[in-house]
Amino acid sequence: MTTQDEKFMSRTIELSRKGMEENDGGPFGAVIVRDGQIIAEGNNKVTSANDPTMHAEVVAIRKACKDLDTFDLSGCTLYTSCEPCPMCLGAIYWAHLDSVYYANTKEDAAYIGFDDAFIYEELDLDMDNRKLPMQQISREQAIEVFKKWGEKEDKIKY
Amino acid sequence: MTTQDEKFMSRTIELSRKGMEENDGGPFGAVIVRDGQIIAEGNNKVTSANDPTMHAEVVAIRKACKDLDTFDLSGCTLYTSCEPCPMCLGAIYWAHLDSVYYANTKEDAAYIGFDDAFIYEELDLDMDNRKLPMQQISREQAIEVFKKWGEKEDKIKY
Repeated sequence: MTTQDEKFMSRTIELSRKGMEENDGGPFGAVIVRDGQIIAEGNNKVTSANDPTMHAEVVAIRKACKDLDTFDLSGCTLYTSCEPCPMCLGAIYWAHLDSVYYANTKEDAAYIGFDDAFIYEELDLDMDNRKLPMQQISREQAIEVFKKWGEKEDKIKY
Repeated sequence: MTTQDEKFMSRTIELSRKGMEENDGGPFGAVIVRDGQIIAEGNNKVTSANDPTMHAEVVAIRKACKDLDTFDLSGCTLYTSCEPCPMCLGAIYWAHLDSVYYANTKEDAAYIGFDDAFIYEELDLDMDNRKLPMQQISREQAIEVFKKWGEKEDKIKY
């Protein structure tokens, strides 16, 4: 940890406070840094945008990708005011971010009423034991498209 | 499983094939159903939109929420041509979908080159054992904003 890391984290905390005060959504902020510069910022906008995926990290990732014209944020670091939920952690892996700094924990988020810890617990369970009913059907039909992908010559991997 | 479930799944598989053929992104489709009607459709657009979060499920969830003007899809069911990755499964919980039908598995996705199974494995590990470096800093400063959220009287919960 460096003074610079703390500076970037201060900015995410400022974003979390501002977003909360302006009723954008929950008290969460995030920034993405490349080469020592903030290249994208985000704060939670779930309730104002009516979009359950607009967590601070997702907002910042989408912004950075749009600005850099890429789906690959290798070489970038994410600073987030709270430990990412499974949705955001998944997005972080898909975006190939190098590393993550976080401040509050998922337990802190649960304490003020957010489902982060519950969703982590659900993902730890076998599918049959989760609260969310999930059922597999029609694999025989769907797998044909996967086979076509395997054979596709002009595919772009991500 | 009913004939209607298979019909909805056929549509997601059609979307997965069409998206692949038109080079929108990976071979994945999804639909959201309410009261026996498809209310939103999506297919993977990661590489064409340069957005690593544009998985079929996220695209369909965002569309349904936009059309219904809500961040809560209680009462709706998701059909997806492949078992949701952790990002999408997180989004499904945050959107409060009732249930999920899927066709291909995360192992099928891994077999044709997608990271779904790897990300599930990473989430199963303690933070210190993951490939993605994560570090906590500045909690003392960030927790103050969470306390303010706890006290906030006009907050909208989600």
